[in-house]
Amino acid sequence: MSFRHVGIIGAGSWGTALAAVLDANRLPTLIWGHDAEHIARVTATHENSTYLPGYRLPDSFHFTTALDDLAECDLVLLVTPSKAVREVAARLSTTALSPEAVLLSCTKGVERGSGLRMSEIIAECFPHNPVAVLSGPSHAEEVVQKMPTAIVLGCAREDIRTRLQQTFATSFFRPYTSEDVAGIELGGALKNIFALAAGVSDGLGLGDNSKAALITRSLAELIRLGVALGGKRETFQGLSGIGDLMVTCFSRHSRNRAVGERLGKGERLADIVASMNMIAEGVPTTYSAFECARRFGIETPIIDQMRALLDGTSAPREVALNLITREPKAE
Amino acid sequence: MSFRHVGIIGAGSWGTALAAVLDANRLPTLIWGHDAEHIARVTATHENSTYLPGYRLPDSFHFTTALDDLAECDLVLLVTPSKAVREVAARLSTTALSPEAVLLSCTKGVERGSGLRMSEIIAECFPHNPVAVLSGPSHAEEVVQKMPTAIVLGCAREDIRTRLQQTFATSFFRPYTSEDVAGIELGGALKNIFALAAGVSDGLGLGDNSKAALITRSLAELIRLGVALGGKRETFQGLSGIGDLMVTCFSRHSRNRAVGERLGKGERLADIVASMNMIAEGVPTTYSAFECARRFGIETPIIDQMRALLDGTSAPREVALNLITREPKAE
Repeated sequence: MSFRHVGIIGAGSWGTALAAVLDANRLPTLIWGHDAEHIARVTATHENSTYLPGYRLPDSFHFTTALDDLAECDLVLLVTPSKAVREVAARLSTTALSPEAVLLSCTKGVERGSGLRMSEIIAECFPHNPVAVLSGPSHAEEVVQKMPTAIVLGCAREDIRTRLQQTFATSFFRPYTSEDVAGIELGGALKNIFALAAGVSDGLGLGDNSKAALITRSLAELIRLGVALGGKRETFQGLSGIGDLMVTCFSRHSRNRAVGERLGKGERLADIVASMNMIAEGVPTTYSAFECARRFGIETPIIDQMRALLDGTSAPREVALNLITREPKAE
Repeated sequence: MSFRHVGIIGAGSWGTALAAVLDANRLPTLIWGHDAEHIARVTATHENSTYLPGYRLPDSFHFTTALDDLAECDLVLLVTPSKAVREVAARLSTTALSPEAVLLSCTKGVERGSGLRMSEIIAECFPHNPVAVLSGPSHAEEVVQKMPTAIVLGCAREDIRTRLQQTFATSFFRPYTSEDVAGIELGGALKNIFALAAGVSDGLGLGDNSKAALITRSLAELIRLGVALGGKRETFQGLSGIGDLMVTCFSRHSRNRAVGERLGKGERLADIVASMNMIAEGVPTTYSAFECARRFGIETPIIDQMRALLDGTSAPREVALNLITREPKAE
């Protein structure tokens, strides 16, 4: 049984790209954005010029700034920055949304303080609704160009996984399914920290050999922490682990890598953030992952160094030296 | 106990770069090359202009075209193309080389027909000598610039591993050790096939999302075949597996990726090979890995597609389609 009314919370690049996938399957979407001016402009121009310039929005995209308008939806995608998920989920839970509506988290992050994954926050707000997650190596810029993309849909319920897979599968967008919701979310969230680190390596001009060594250790650290936090080892070997890690560490589209590169070149975090109109989730995730790692007693040398760099207590070159200069030992 | 006389068989870029590492540890090297003209030019100009232009060779590098000159060595690095290893090892075995001399394979490949790894070929020629291997993500161009690089040294004997580690460890070159010789060699050899495939994806302009999905599946295929051929799963998670795979699939220095990119753009293999002065090991390894996979009954869809492409029985777009268009399923 396919979904009939799809709502998308978040009018950024990824929300727009996912709406484009659904449009390819002739599913109209109702996109909610918090910024009335942005929504008015997008509606008027049929272009999301702030976040995804150059892509003409199809007529099947509808926009609103009223969350109540999503109450009829049987599928709602949450695609906001991680820091907005709790507030927006709480607000959505006060609407007349059916307890059978599926909530699909497409946001990559871990909440500070609580250490909760996005789907866990959503489940707190919607204890009766099925909650699923979508993650994987997928730059929005390529998805709207219908370039081949594979992602993972995770849900504890098999019927929901299958429905979502059918809803999103197109000739260019291939959803795989998994029941390891935690692994999928943790892979997607944690990899952003290591993309920052890879960017620092780029910014320092350390070369590909170093970067390969750094990302190899990043994957080991991601798996170590991810398994401790409840993900399955195999999941981190897949699209939402190593696949997403690689593309984020190497792609020119990657915001987190780009932030790391500017940090590596000596720019201050506050200046970088002020100059961007998008969120680099790796920054808050560095802090929340650091907190989780301490709570579970997991060694995370790369995360620790990135936190020191973001805090300004360590310089990029110092960070690199701390990561590279270790005693020769068995692999 | 450190080595006193080090010979290097192969005067290409990687042999030169490894000599540069040893020079940093004040170890002179005697480099053998088969091409008298090349060796004469390198000796006269102090530059390996064919394979590593722009790097001034230190005075500690000595050159020869006589294998007998290496008979005094207590460490010999084999750094030739894979197709030359059996012949050169057989010839070296007729010299007066001590049965205690350590033979270190630095070549990435698998022999066609026999399915033997380079260290196994060497061990056939030198049944009494200790044989070790060196692999990992390490472009020669960066090593001679003393850019930070981490590699893996593998040997069944711990004392040899430790001696080699001490011999190669410098401030910029970090050798890790492992006893999984098969895994290290297979990771280094097989990854070249997947770098060809990643290059094809680049040549077709398929984007980063596709490439991430392809490399994710590549790693799974590499591990599946590598484990069947005797490597340890953990090794493929390390520098000589995922680390080397990544750098080869993304780096501008990678010859195998570059060959794949030209194939993806529609050039013929024979023309590409004729235009290069270096070997792209991924080409012969595609065939030997295909043979091994059939012998062990392992499914290798990417290797199979690459073989069809190299054979000219499949076009790049067809190959990509065959790899991308699969039924949606569980990850």
